[in-house]
Amino acid sequence: MNVVEVAIINVTSYMGMEAARLLSRHPGVKLVSVTGRSEAGKSLASVLPHLSGIGLTIDPAPQVADVVFSALPHKASAEVLLPLVEKGTKVIDLSADFRLKAVEEYQRWYDFSHPAPEMLQKAVYGLPELHRPQLASCSLVANPGCYPTGAILALVPAVKEGLVHPDIIVDSKSGVSGAGRTLSMTAHFAEANENVSAYALGGHRHLPEIVQELEATGSRKLSVTFLPHLVPMTRGILTSCYARLADGKLPDGEKGVAELRQVYRDFYKDEPFVRVADAPPQTKQTLGTNLCLVYPTIDLRTNRLMVISCLDNLVKGGSGQAVQNMNVMLGFPETAGLESLAVYP
Amino acid sequence: MNVVEVAIINVTSYMGMEAARLLSRHPGVKLVSVTGRSEAGKSLASVLPHLSGIGLTIDPAPQVADVVFSALPHKASAEVLLPLVEKGTKVIDLSADFRLKAVEEYQRWYDFSHPAPEMLQKAVYGLPELHRPQLASCSLVANPGCYPTGAILALVPAVKEGLVHPDIIVDSKSGVSGAGRTLSMTAHFAEANENVSAYALGGHRHLPEIVQELEATGSRKLSVTFLPHLVPMTRGILTSCYARLADGKLPDGEKGVAELRQVYRDFYKDEPFVRVADAPPQTKQTLGTNLCLVYPTIDLRTNRLMVISCLDNLVKGGSGQAVQNMNVMLGFPETAGLESLAVYP
Amino acid sequence: MNVVEVAIINVTSYMGMEAARLLSRHPGVKLVSVTGRSEAGKSLASVLPHLSGIGLTIDPAPQVADVVFSALPHKASAEVLLPLVEKGTKVIDLSADFRLKAVEEYQRWYDFSHPAPEMLQKAVYGLPELHRPQLASCSLVANPGCYPTGAILALVPAVKEGLVHPDIIVDSKSGVSGAGRTLSMTAHFAEANENVSAYALGGHRHLPEIVQELEATGSRKLSVTFLPHLVPMTRGILTSCYARLADGKLPDGEKGVAELRQVYRDFYKDEPFVRVADAPPQTKQTLGTNLCLVYPTIDLRTNRLMVISCLDNLVKGGSGQAVQNMNVMLGFPETAGLESLAVYP
Amino acid sequence: MNVVEVAIINVTSYMGMEAARLLSRHPGVKLVSVTGRSEAGKSLASVLPHLSGIGLTIDPAPQVADVVFSALPHKASAEVLLPLVEKGTKVIDLSADFRLKAVEEYQRWYDFSHPAPEMLQKAVYGLPELHRPQLASCSLVANPGCYPTGAILALVPAVKEGLVHPDIIVDSKSGVSGAGRTLSMTAHFAEANENVSAYALGGHRHLPEIVQELEATGSRKLSVTFLPHLVPMTRGILTSCYARLADGKLPDGEKGVAELRQVYRDFYKDEPFVRVADAPPQTKQTLGTNLCLVYPTIDLRTNRLMVISCLDNLVKGGSGQAVQNMNVMLGFPETAGLESLAVYP
Repeated sequence: MNVVEVAIINVTSYMGMEAARLLSRHPGVKLVSVTGRSEAGKSLASVLPHLSGIGLTIDPAPQVADVVFSALPHKASAEVLLPLVEKGTKVIDLSADFRLKAVEEYQRWYDFSHPAPEMLQKAVYGLPELHRPQLASCSLVANPGCYPTGAILALVPAVKEGLVHPDIIVDSKSGVSGAGRTLSMTAHFAEANENVSAYALGGHRHLPEIVQELEATGSRKLSVTFLPHLVPMTRGILTSCYARLADGKLPDGEKGVAELRQVYRDFYKDEPFVRVADAPPQTKQTLGTNLCLVYPTIDLRTNRLMVISCLDNLVKGGSGQAVQNMNVMLGFPETAGLESLAVYP
Repeated sequence: MNVVEVAIINVTSYMGMEAARLLSRHPGVKLVSVTGRSEAGKSLASVLPHLSGIGLTIDPAPQVADVVFSALPHKASAEVLLPLVEKGTKVIDLSADFRLKAVEEYQRWYDFSHPAPEMLQKAVYGLPELHRPQLASCSLVANPGCYPTGAILALVPAVKEGLVHPDIIVDSKSGVSGAGRTLSMTAHFAEANENVSAYALGGHRHLPEIVQELEATGSRKLSVTFLPHLVPMTRGILTSCYARLADGKLPDGEKGVAELRQVYRDFYKDEPFVRVADAPPQTKQTLGTNLCLVYPTIDLRTNRLMVISCLDNLVKGGSGQAVQNMNVMLGFPETAGLESLAVYP
Repeated sequence: MNVVEVAIINVTSYMGMEAARLLSRHPGVKLVSVTGRSEAGKSLASVLPHLSGIGLTIDPAPQVADVVFSALPHKASAEVLLPLVEKGTKVIDLSADFRLKAVEEYQRWYDFSHPAPEMLQKAVYGLPELHRPQLASCSLVANPGCYPTGAILALVPAVKEGLVHPDIIVDSKSGVSGAGRTLSMTAHFAEANENVSAYALGGHRHLPEIVQELEATGSRKLSVTFLPHLVPMTRGILTSCYARLADGKLPDGEKGVAELRQVYRDFYKDEPFVRVADAPPQTKQTLGTNLCLVYPTIDLRTNRLMVISCLDNLVKGGSGQAVQNMNVMLGFPETAGLESLAVYP
Repeated sequence: MNVVEVAIINVTSYMGMEAARLLSRHPGVKLVSVTGRSEAGKSLASVLPHLSGIGLTIDPAPQVADVVFSALPHKASAEVLLPLVEKGTKVIDLSADFRLKAVEEYQRWYDFSHPAPEMLQKAVYGLPELHRPQLASCSLVANPGCYPTGAILALVPAVKEGLVHPDIIVDSKSGVSGAGRTLSMTAHFAEANENVSAYALGGHRHLPEIVQELEATGSRKLSVTFLPHLVPMTRGILTSCYARLADGKLPDGEKGVAELRQVYRDFYKDEPFVRVADAPPQTKQTLGTNLCLVYPTIDLRTNRLMVISCLDNLVKGGSGQAVQNMNVMLGFPETAGLESLAVYP
């Protein structure tokens, strides 16, 4: 494996520090620069003691690198990345700035006018299970959101095969690190602990991604309701999906369940990071790993598809997937730097 | 208020000890006996130090009382309670043994042959919001399950008014105390902590209760999918319900949302323990109280009803509701012994 | 019981909202005013939904009342309270502003020059177990800190009886609500969860209170090391105290342990809110209650006193104790409004 | 690096599964056999899904291997390991069976008569920071307990240099996984969550290890009080140690603190897994890693040494240290298989 030089923008965010954790142990990577505006000039070890082993000083702006990961918030990310893309740097953007193909969605969901609409077509949505060939030859990856990764991987085999009606419910339960490192009452320990809440009932920003990718896979418009919930744990997303089965696509009863599982197993058979589980999976089984566990079944009383997916929102739902995307872009083995097993319990 | 003598069977279970907590401070109750087979003969204070204030010794069997609460598991509960009912004791059963009207459901869901099918019609399902008049004159209350309480209260106004299609999804998130005090790997701290999982994907025992009560309220058969999840907290259930809106029942857009809320507010306007919330509620807002918070809204993109409900599974989802039922039975003020506000944060 | 009118300053803090929870259910209290600068003008129900039952609007400043509770931070509290005290209002201050008798300690530990040193002698340190007679006739109560309450109650019988050497270690473990409601990285969920840390290694502000009260009880100078720790739970403080036994005060072996316990039982025999536990207590046994559980024992190998105490930092460690102090001041039964049992589990 | 064949006995315990997690990614190891009595014959993937990547079937007894790790409980472990040691297999025992040099301690603390007292002298206590040379040439490693690892590493530089009086307090706070995977009320989620408790007040089995190793390092008898506490998190131990400073060994004031730190830095300067922290460390900074963070300081008011140490009880406090010991035994690079950074947050 050649060694490429990599920079991380905004290492002090959870996505940034998780990228640093993974990249610092990647055999094909030399981490050359990490940035963090408010902490520039300090040693990474003093600001983030768990990254002491890395030995860098926090830069105000990224130094020249072969690959740049951005963990900036949306809008800020595009502003910093566009010049880098123009210079030919390979870029992996963990923000939402290049995920949506329809430029008007940025106004609608993110309340800003996209600065480079033409780039939306060049950027590749970084879900390797759907877009591996394009990722291999692109220079700008739009790394998926944490919720969309779990929702899309749970649903895409069923949607693609036309197994379900277009009415789909996606009910997600996320750990609090998904809210990021910015202080808020929602993420204040005494408020979030011993508490479950639904949020974004008026529509969550990750919805258009989910719809975009699922509709591109299947053949028709979908009517997706997506409701996220906050649960009192640090990492992990469990997503429960529901949709009525299309008539006549699967046999009745347990035979239908078996056939459904086979559809999923076939779809994911060569995927290193999606495992079709034999039993209902738990978020804890993915802690610290790049795995997405998927469990499809049928509620036989109502003839409804139920699919559960689990992942670590900061790994497969974020920086781990970003590393996977880098591996694909650079022709590295796709699992390089991502071999760890879950830290359980 | 007269003072009645009350006994609790199986005080060492979570439902039993919660009943003791509430009843010991009830102005119309004298707690005269608590049982707990394996701990009989010991002082309640030594076995459950937080109940030291009560000053009873654990009995092997309940002493004579005006009202008996049973926190035994199903089947065991019916066996112990039937003789008491025959003797004319007022009984509140926290188990499932008298909740279902169709006797064959016991075989199907609980795997036992019901010992007194005739009692199923005499027992009243103890949801005061639906059955207050019958509760006032009955002597055997079947206290609802924790999940059904939240699901039914979330859905009944919409179902009764015919606002929704019969395809209903109920996705519940419960704290671990719902699994009871019996040791299990599922409830082992290191396994349950920092973890979310779906369970009972093949069908949960609380489903028939939910269907029974909702169908009795509305006018047609429903197709309900109910999926419970375990989240890493001790108490609380948040239930998210989804159903497509029936055509032409509510106006489009925000006007429909407002009308929907009014339907719910009207339905619950005299209820002391159901509050139609103005903002999405959180389980923590109900900790230790007998409240059920309900928040109905519409996903305007897909024209789908979404209702969130929150409660404390051991209070409104269990022993608090049992006390409420006792109050109704005995003609006490319905809120007696249940006035505490939530312990927040 | 007469009914007094009570106001709470800064109801949006954890101490303020806990005072509201308790006072709103107190049979001798009419809650007439709650303040909260940034939320003034809003209904209490909209800002703090769990207090919906109270039905007040948040005031910018407290309305006239017989008794005022202040949950303001130090310095701000004294500024607001001094005029009230002068007007003859009975005041209970939850801040540190009147706890210390030696005025220079304010400069040293709190970094401000005390505005009314003469009031420090008039104020009574609100630990009823030590100062009940003075509390009964005072008009300004300095409500103790959460850590000092647990540490003093754990140690005072031993110190008073001269059972220990003056070298004392106090190692406390606190839930995160003790850090208050102000946002901070320390109390950010993803940082505090699954984490234990020691803090204030250079000296914590609660140390001088602990020393002041213990030295006033015993007969000599003490050398106290106090180290607080943050543990990932919302409420509760467990304090472990260590000191070598003085020679010849207690018999050797288990007999000494028995005698030690008797000293503690005698000391607390009439106290409604201190219980000398028969087994090592747990913080959970005090959740939501005004109890302090104390467990003294001896490490027989090293002849060292070990005392464990547990309390709910927002109740006996804060607003519950404030209500207890009010009861003493007003001649109410000391347990009025504080009868609830712990919410367990 | 040569590749050695390794077996793990009792892989279904937390120590066993953690050993499997680490060894399966070790570049010099081929994991050839894992045992687990009650699950023998099943695939490891079905019993412990997070270990799916390993691809072994659970054996009833360990197959022949170069190195065997035992995660059996005490007594059972010695029984299984003694024949292996006799056959010349290199053995790393995670139980207490070979940790204590004085055979009578087994009767006293573990209540059994040791089956092979002569082996106690041949076994090496597996703390590489103290016994690296002996480990390099031994064939039986007694892997230290989780508490002793943190306590000894916190105290040994001070004790060795004679900086402290022999009266030492060790106050430890542990996550619940330390209690193992055997079901118990103590580790039942609803009981352990939102709770802190002290336990083993009559003396914990890890005390004799702590005393043995510290006394062997210094020059005199110590009087150690060790009190463990359970805190509501899965992994991590934070240990706070207290001892009065010996007279005249360190300069007064901050200069003394600086000199103290230098003593610690010098002591650990070549250690790959002990880091003398610049700020008070937190358990979370060690999650999933083999690091022990140590922070020595002085309470200048009382002239008392305070040392905080943090580690992951299943890694440096267990299976990670076992892997480190294996590396030393086999002449592998000491950090092989242990390079991961902490999973933070």
